[in-house]
Amino acid sequence: MSAADTTHFLCTIEDGIARIALDRPERKNPLTFDSYAELRDWFRDLHYNDDIKAVVFASNGGNFSSGGDVHDIIGPLTRMNMKELLQFTRMTGDLVKAMINCGKPVIAAIDGICVGAGAIIAMASDLRIATPEAKVAFLFTRVGLAGCDMGACAILPRIIGQGRAAELLYTGRAMNADEGAAWGFHNRLVAADALEDEARKLASQIAAGPNFGHMITKTMLAQEWSMSIEQAIEAEAQAQAICMQTGDFERAYRAFVAKEKPVFLGD
Amino acid sequence: MSAADTTHFLCTIEDGIARIALDRPERKNPLTFDSYAELRDWFRDLHYNDDIKAVVFASNGGNFSSGGDVHDIIGPLTRMNMKELLQFTRMTGDLVKAMINCGKPVIAAIDGICVGAGAIIAMASDLRIATPEAKVAFLFTRVGLAGCDMGACAILPRIIGQGRAAELLYTGRAMNADEGAAWGFHNRLVAADALEDEARKLASQIAAGPNFGHMITKTMLAQEWSMSIEQAIEAEAQAQAICMQTGDFERAYRAFVAKEKPVFLGD
Amino acid sequence: MSAADTTHFLCTIEDGIARIALDRPERKNPLTFDSYAELRDWFRDLHYNDDIKAVVFASNGGNFSSGGDVHDIIGPLTRMNMKELLQFTRMTGDLVKAMINCGKPVIAAIDGICVGAGAIIAMASDLRIATPEAKVAFLFTRVGLAGCDMGACAILPRIIGQGRAAELLYTGRAMNADEGAAWGFHNRLVAADALEDEARKLASQIAAGPNFGHMITKTMLAQEWSMSIEQAIEAEAQAQAICMQTGDFERAYRAFVAKEKPVFLGD
Repeated sequence: MSAADTTHFLCTIEDGIARIALDRPERKNPLTFDSYAELRDWFRDLHYNDDIKAVVFASNGGNFSSGGDVHDIIGPLTRMNMKELLQFTRMTGDLVKAMINCGKPVIAAIDGICVGAGAIIAMASDLRIATPEAKVAFLFTRVGLAGCDMGACAILPRIIGQGRAAELLYTGRAMNADEGAAWGFHNRLVAADALEDEARKLASQIAAGPNFGHMITKTMLAQEWSMSIEQAIEAEAQAQAICMQTGDFERAYRAFVAKEKPVFLGD
Repeated sequence: MSAADTTHFLCTIEDGIARIALDRPERKNPLTFDSYAELRDWFRDLHYNDDIKAVVFASNGGNFSSGGDVHDIIGPLTRMNMKELLQFTRMTGDLVKAMINCGKPVIAAIDGICVGAGAIIAMASDLRIATPEAKVAFLFTRVGLAGCDMGACAILPRIIGQGRAAELLYTGRAMNADEGAAWGFHNRLVAADALEDEARKLASQIAAGPNFGHMITKTMLAQEWSMSIEQAIEAEAQAQAICMQTGDFERAYRAFVAKEKPVFLGD
Repeated sequence: MSAADTTHFLCTIEDGIARIALDRPERKNPLTFDSYAELRDWFRDLHYNDDIKAVVFASNGGNFSSGGDVHDIIGPLTRMNMKELLQFTRMTGDLVKAMINCGKPVIAAIDGICVGAGAIIAMASDLRIATPEAKVAFLFTRVGLAGCDMGACAILPRIIGQGRAAELLYTGRAMNADEGAAWGFHNRLVAADALEDEARKLASQIAAGPNFGHMITKTMLAQEWSMSIEQAIEAEAQAQAICMQTGDFERAYRAFVAKEKPVFLGD
């Protein structure tokens, strides 16, 4: 296992899987200006790093994240001018863009509190495993703001439907774990003491490849968002034709013929 | 409480909440040319009226609405030319546009029959609370028409998914209350005698603000519909930066520091 | 009942309903280059054939389809150059486009194995009835490819939500029948021995019309996919005005006045 060189969040890398987590468990892992920026940069770099094949965004001390710190972030924001405010909201949005464009599936492992920007990070992940104690709240409205933060009005409705997203975004109320699972936000619920294992197991399965294919899947899940059906089908014809010239496609075929399990190499 | 000056539907305003309802309960509250037009104008005016902070579209006499009246509307339509028909379909579509653009969250309180244009009004609301007796049917197909009425083929799939929407729109069959709740059409089911209270409670919570934020949330939930993810994130960075210069954002911060509940003023 | 002139899949036409099915039940009905191409051409021709009013895509021998045949399709693909590969992926995409543009509602009747391109055909249908034994898997990842095949990254999220679609597309795992029903992929589950009857009953209901309306519904469900809400509402105003000049609209009105069940003629 190697520890990556991160200052404002935890990061360990093992077997092609990066495990990252915010690290102020005594305050339920709030985000700060520094951790926002470092996470953004880390996910941007990840785009070019093929040693990491999947990411687990983990909880820490029984909670995922309490979101933007009220003292460290909200206080200063109330004293900024518009240029500075837009710089901040674009930085937070850039974190979501970087997560979506990093090319590797991200699995959020959600225990306890997962609110504000923490809920956004969970939403911007590809898959979500949660414990029965997980509470996810988009509580921007509680601090006098709108629900449209870091892509929430676009992304959340695509995951849980427009009506449920509207309720969460207007009221800021918590979505409990059962709701999250029933509505398709969480892919699965597991007991808290099994959360890390389950997330790692799913990450391992994905890290086993085909990684080039997974990168293209992630790209197209975002890319086709606002295409017409006809455009999407043509885009997929091109994208899948590219994948058919990878070695992993041939490796899978040969393994099938030999009645073996394919070993993917990512090219 | 003040009664607004409406002729073809009921409207009372109290504590910043407008309660409106169709008013022919003996016929399950059908729409007429007049009530369509007056509702459209009322929602258009609402865009500029900040005394009203939330709307409850209520049921009346145990039913929400039976939709376009067969004798008053469908009969005349069968005798119109294309110019007149398009004038009518655009007027009905303009009601949905006006509801979406009015800037205030709309809560449909649905009891009993909610069909045709009535189902569309429920669908075009932001939130829906229903009774176990609620029956929602998009029955355009039953009168020889297509399911694409007033935005249904675009909006309904975003709320309940493409497959379920297709079934309702092709067959015209009623979605019962349990289906509506399980599929994310209804946000909640409550007993008929609790419907008005529950809708008012939710409306009060929303009317307490932050109202500028809610208006922006409503705007962005519609605006980002057909944007790419990248466009949506930039649009939200701008929209949220605007909200960060409102007094309500600072009021929320000060209340938090003082360990008080924030009082929002809407600017 | 008349048998249509098809070589690579079964097709019988009765009472305005075409029943088609792949026909290699001993191998769970894989697709071949020939059946892909013939299905594409058949659905393209269907656009101009108003004798057929609804389609049931049936299972055969207890299974729907095992997808692209490994020996007949995947082997040859591993030896093709890019021009040939794109020709293939466009042909498969053209099948989905042809299904979406054929103008007649398609009901998939899914028993047993429904995987790969078989799962895509089910997904590209308008409605899905399945048995408790139905297993639907988008297993492109298992053969070293990406999940973006024939429109899956665009269409599947619209049916079951972005998070659930991502899991199925990354892992290739089977969605069981209960999940399919809970997630809105299947419209209904029925026992295997009732599958054909239920699918035919639903097809008959749809075939009874209004068929011009159904064609417009199908068109708009696809057409409005990437429109803004405002564009969609205007598009529906125009589309529904067209439907209001059909005879079926007047027939429905007259039947209502006469307290009879309308008989639709499709014009």
